[in-house]
Amino acid sequence: MIVGGGFGGLHAARALARAAVRVTLVDRHNYHLFQPLLYQVATAGLSPGDIASPIRWILRRQRNLQVLLASVQGIDPARKALRLDGGGEIAYDFLILAAGSAHSYFGHDEWEKPAPGLKTLDDALRIRRRMLLAFERAERASDPVEQRRLLTFAVVGGGPTGVELAGAVAEIARHTLKQEFRSIEPGSARVILIEAGPRILPAFPETLQEASERSLTRLGVEVWKNKPVTGISPCVVEFGNERLAAGTVLWAAGVAASPLGKALGVPLDRVGRVMVHEDLSVAGHAEVFVVGDLAHLEQDGALLPGVAQVAMQQGRHAARNILRGLEGRERQPFRYRDYGNMATIGRAAAVADFGWLRLSGWIAWMAWLLVHIMKLVGFRNRIGVLIQWAWAYFTYQRSVRLITGKQG
Amino acid sequence: MIVGGGFGGLHAARALARAAVRVTLVDRHNYHLFQPLLYQVATAGLSPGDIASPIRWILRRQRNLQVLLASVQGIDPARKALRLDGGGEIAYDFLILAAGSAHSYFGHDEWEKPAPGLKTLDDALRIRRRMLLAFERAERASDPVEQRRLLTFAVVGGGPTGVELAGAVAEIARHTLKQEFRSIEPGSARVILIEAGPRILPAFPETLQEASERSLTRLGVEVWKNKPVTGISPCVVEFGNERLAAGTVLWAAGVAASPLGKALGVPLDRVGRVMVHEDLSVAGHAEVFVVGDLAHLEQDGALLPGVAQVAMQQGRHAARNILRGLEGRERQPFRYRDYGNMATIGRAAAVADFGWLRLSGWIAWMAWLLVHIMKLVGFRNRIGVLIQWAWAYFTYQRSVRLITGKQG
Repeated sequence: MIVGGGFGGLHAARALARAAVRVTLVDRHNYHLFQPLLYQVATAGLSPGDIASPIRWILRRQRNLQVLLASVQGIDPARKALRLDGGGEIAYDFLILAAGSAHSYFGHDEWEKPAPGLKTLDDALRIRRRMLLAFERAERASDPVEQRRLLTFAVVGGGPTGVELAGAVAEIARHTLKQEFRSIEPGSARVILIEAGPRILPAFPETLQEASERSLTRLGVEVWKNKPVTGISPCVVEFGNERLAAGTVLWAAGVAASPLGKALGVPLDRVGRVMVHEDLSVAGHAEVFVVGDLAHLEQDGALLPGVAQVAMQQGRHAARNILRGLEGRERQPFRYRDYGNMATIGRAAAVADFGWLRLSGWIAWMAWLLVHIMKLVGFRNRIGVLIQWAWAYFTYQRSVRLITGKQG
Repeated sequence: MIVGGGFGGLHAARALARAAVRVTLVDRHNYHLFQPLLYQVATAGLSPGDIASPIRWILRRQRNLQVLLASVQGIDPARKALRLDGGGEIAYDFLILAAGSAHSYFGHDEWEKPAPGLKTLDDALRIRRRMLLAFERAERASDPVEQRRLLTFAVVGGGPTGVELAGAVAEIARHTLKQEFRSIEPGSARVILIEAGPRILPAFPETLQEASERSLTRLGVEVWKNKPVTGISPCVVEFGNERLAAGTVLWAAGVAASPLGKALGVPLDRVGRVMVHEDLSVAGHAEVFVVGDLAHLEQDGALLPGVAQVAMQQGRHAARNILRGLEGRERQPFRYRDYGNMATIGRAAAVADFGWLRLSGWIAWMAWLLVHIMKLVGFRNRIGVLIQWAWAYFTYQRSVRLITGKQG
């Protein structure tokens, strides 16, 4: 049984393709989401269909596997069973839990409404709606103070998602919307990236941090560092006594592990990740594996990061350890191979750290582009995204500037 | 002042491009929707972004025009003013009302929830979600009666939209989902097209009606004629004492004019369309024009149909009549030039009636394809749709099979 159709779950499923086992993969959504490009859906560059593919389509040729659209409500490790929404129960011999992560508002759940985060496709469509509505409302507003407020965008969190969002919003304001408004000048919008710590992109080497800050500033983004947020309410961000009036506030600061980890009844870390053994199984249940963002594993003294590469490698590894066990062979400890780290900032600007090679600017952006195109699931998506990017590059346009769904 | 950014409003705006007038276009949505392809979004063939473009992007070069995202709450023809949501008011010298139409449930508004209609992008996404969820739920269901019910799709209304929806759902069941399920056989799904009258596609000549019925039958669609629906409740369609258990019911039967027509205080027809003079202005208000689906105009004894062609020609005509008046010239009566009528049924099957030429089958489908690609707004959309159609044709796949949004 595999819970979750993200990078970890999908790669676990594939590693079991030729084995004499029966596999069930359960996910709340009917699609696998290419999360690294989710910010492009939020900023109107790509359509949801470009970065998501139905899980059952991806795995259709794997005859030993069934996909179920269901939300897991509970896990009973003693009875080796999962409880699904709608009341069904499924027994398992082996479980690979790859349920991922969600936003964390550090105990301030009331910040979620005024400052939506970016984890799911529906999140991305909500952010897209809010951002586009801000410009539309500013065009209709008659009060200049109100216009100013509506044209201020605050992005909280200086990690890769925050940097990508801030860069994209600035690009939209400066380039994409040019000429289209009559009462406002979209290029005058303020985009502010707010980081609590002393530097943005903390996982990157210092030279690349500085390069990305320069790129953001060139795009017109204000980078505020050492600014811990103390309060968020509709259209206001607070820093102690200081207040920022911003019509749109986006949250890219914290992640928490999926609440499903708790159901296992094994030790968790501070943010709810499950402590796993070196073979990725959990304490007291050799038949239960946890992989990806939900797993806490240290390597060479450092926690493995919550990135796609780790999830994919762990998913494959857990599946192979199960097969090794079935064949009477010994399980292997997991060892992460780090192929590098990238973040994109905007048009022709990115940073990439491959360890032996550090890139920034146009060449890093080309590398980012190539890697992401290659990693997309499905040939059609690759072609589709490539065309949209080429079009966007030459025209400065974004193809999916639609305000859809209920307002909120 | 132009109300509505559909075919009528957009073509009115363009006809005013080079004139010495100030134009404001108001729409509830920020995009112009290519309605003829909306059923392809509902059936997972295209993304919303492929058939919708921001109105302000389309009209960005027209410097005498401002676009406002607003919903018109009322019209005061005596004071020549519009009331917008949020309390604003706008005065006009001339008004072109192109507010279009909505579904009509013939007085049974309680049918809307169990049988959603297809007019907006959000409607299309709701239909897509319901249709895909039906297959997912059937895969999880253990009761064969329940599975049967979930795999029954009823489309009410045998006009072009109903025929297109039924054909597409049948294609998805027979081809697209093949091999992807383990507990159900998607190809065994029943798709039933229900028409109250004696024939489907009543606006087409009889030979083409018969051709389209044969195509539907070949696709596995059951065509029920002379079957007026008397009741719809969740998963049940009633015909007098007869009942059909259908997990998904789609409504493609009736349209009503936008309620904005009523605000003018001039004569309406039975379904709320505004009776217009030959020059497209309304009784008692020579400065108010109504075009498109909201206008009731007869030509050679027959009501002009609610199709894109009529709306575009009327939008242009109303704008030109305003300019003629400003130049002291006489207004011209509107005369519709009918270039033909088309409906598509499914893969390589369509009917087309150009008056002097009637086509069906593969050649009509190619004609349908060409016309619709050419008429799409925006080069990127044309390329994007072409690629998706080519991909779908060769692989039988549909690219946007995503279940997004709140369930309902």
